[in-house]
Amino acid sequence: MGEFELIARYFKRPARRSPLGVGDDCALLAPAPGMQLAVSSDMLVEGRHFLSTVDPERLGHKALAVNLSDLAACGARPLGFMLALALPSVDEAWMQGFARGLFALADAHDCELVGGDTTRGPLNICITVFGEVPAGAALLRSGASAGEDIWVSGNLGDARLALEVFRGRYALPPAGFELARARMEAPTPRVALGRALLGVATSAIDLSDGLVGDLRHILEASGVGAEIEADVVAGCMAVLAEPEGAAALPELAFRRACALAGGDDYELAFTAPAADRDRVRRCALESNTTVTRIGWTTSAPGLRILGEGGVEIEKARFSGFDHFG
Amino acid sequence: MGEFELIARYFKRPARRSPLGVGDDCALLAPAPGMQLAVSSDMLVEGRHFLSTVDPERLGHKALAVNLSDLAACGARPLGFMLALALPSVDEAWMQGFARGLFALADAHDCELVGGDTTRGPLNICITVFGEVPAGAALLRSGASAGEDIWVSGNLGDARLALEVFRGRYALPPAGFELARARMEAPTPRVALGRALLGVATSAIDLSDGLVGDLRHILEASGVGAEIEADVVAGCMAVLAEPEGAAALPELAFRRACALAGGDDYELAFTAPAADRDRVRRCALESNTTVTRIGWTTSAPGLRILGEGGVEIEKARFSGFDHFG
Repeated sequence: MGEFELIARYFKRPARRSPLGVGDDCALLAPAPGMQLAVSSDMLVEGRHFLSTVDPERLGHKALAVNLSDLAACGARPLGFMLALALPSVDEAWMQGFARGLFALADAHDCELVGGDTTRGPLNICITVFGEVPAGAALLRSGASAGEDIWVSGNLGDARLALEVFRGRYALPPAGFELARARMEAPTPRVALGRALLGVATSAIDLSDGLVGDLRHILEASGVGAEIEADVVAGCMAVLAEPEGAAALPELAFRRACALAGGDDYELAFTAPAADRDRVRRCALESNTTVTRIGWTTSAPGLRILGEGGVEIEKARFSGFDHFG
Repeated sequence: MGEFELIARYFKRPARRSPLGVGDDCALLAPAPGMQLAVSSDMLVEGRHFLSTVDPERLGHKALAVNLSDLAACGARPLGFMLALALPSVDEAWMQGFARGLFALADAHDCELVGGDTTRGPLNICITVFGEVPAGAALLRSGASAGEDIWVSGNLGDARLALEVFRGRYALPPAGFELARARMEAPTPRVALGRALLGVATSAIDLSDGLVGDLRHILEASGVGAEIEADVVAGCMAVLAEPEGAAALPELAFRRACALAGGDDYELAFTAPAADRDRVRRCALESNTTVTRIGWTTSAPGLRILGEGGVEIEKARFSGFDHFG
């Protein structure tokens, strides 16, 4: 199958938002008056970001989800995306599954494929996503002040737990494993929450490398420190809500490590004034997303992780997952 | 070296156009009032788009050049780009060379790095470029009418000639080889010409897969046919201007094949009314680019390649280079 036939078969759809559909040298886009475009790129590599055995439908979902998660962290509304795809060969069943997962998520967020590139090569998926945010309103990493609450959305640590099961380092009963595996393979980008938090949150970041590592970016960009409660964070694992999974969960230290530094969560961490707790909870309710208050910012720099009784835990054990580490 | 240190060392520069430099979840961009954003992505894979032995400085240049060429084909002014990079390892000398070539071309076009992603994986370079074009004015593939001139910019066929030398299928003396090799490894995106052609050209495309294959996209999108003169096209090879290279050039059939279907040229093909020949030549002069009139569009569909005495040449021999062929 040729490159053009591949695009026509799997990726050509009627143009909606873009003045041009897939197929000219460039896609043409314009944000509405008073809006800025928020742009992010994420590249997914086999063995690094997904296992070779992953269901292609979930992979299509995840490739877009990790990009939408960056828009969510800025509070932007998704508009469209570019897809660049290197494939070792064209497997039709794989392509159909990949396109199905990709477009299901794209449609759910009204985010249109506007262009891209396909080539032969080791499997690599690079998506660049575009969203729209009122000029000057985007949630940044740099807006936190001392004395604010630190919140996270949804669930933390399950993706890493699933990875450890795949690696054979840990075992879970089937229901618990499927739950954790779904969190690893099909994360939920918190787009609605991010948009609701515009004007409420003072800073935000999406969690891809692990809470401890990513939260540090907020602290450095904002010039503040933070204290977070390890066991509140460890309580954010989705498997805890699954009876069979919870019963089989490993010891607390392992749970803490997964939730604090496991990575691949694609949740939001954000700060907001303590006076705005009810507003934050309303944002969560409106966007049908759970949120958990895990700590607070401090004027003293650095990140302190507090264990039982508020005693600081040695944090070298929870350094972020680094793609070149 | 960690991902963040790598970004800081090689890719962090003071922000200029983008409200945010490299480093938040998203880059923020807005075209000026009345302008649209033109967006294009190209992914480069080792062995497919470049040889493993290529000078990293030239590779940095080429990775951006092939993207700027898409902006040129729409007549857009470059604004910024996202860089997603998968690297098997971090080689500092390689990174320095790559960044030097990349930023030299970026600076020459006032095109700012606004964000991206780095990861470990088989070498893959994916750039998404943004440009600005007056709303509704972009050069498209679909605007040609019958009876117009067909033009190409610059030189055709040298990149393929160099590839055939690398493959050992052909030999050139050193000066001719270096000239052809430079065309393959460091193509010149025709940005100034594309911008000058706004309001003059009726359609345009950038030549990446070979003239015959790419021109067909204009013909199909515009609903016209074309006749082009094989030996005028074959006369566009840069090595013809290099005495030592010209003397050693292969037989006409091989030159024709390189120029008509060699690929990797990153020149523009465009159409314009015959009455506007002087305007086209002025655009070329202003943008310091050579242009060559290679044929004309016809109401009869299909592409005819004319040889000596206007006799049609069997065109199956000149089908475009297809990345999945």
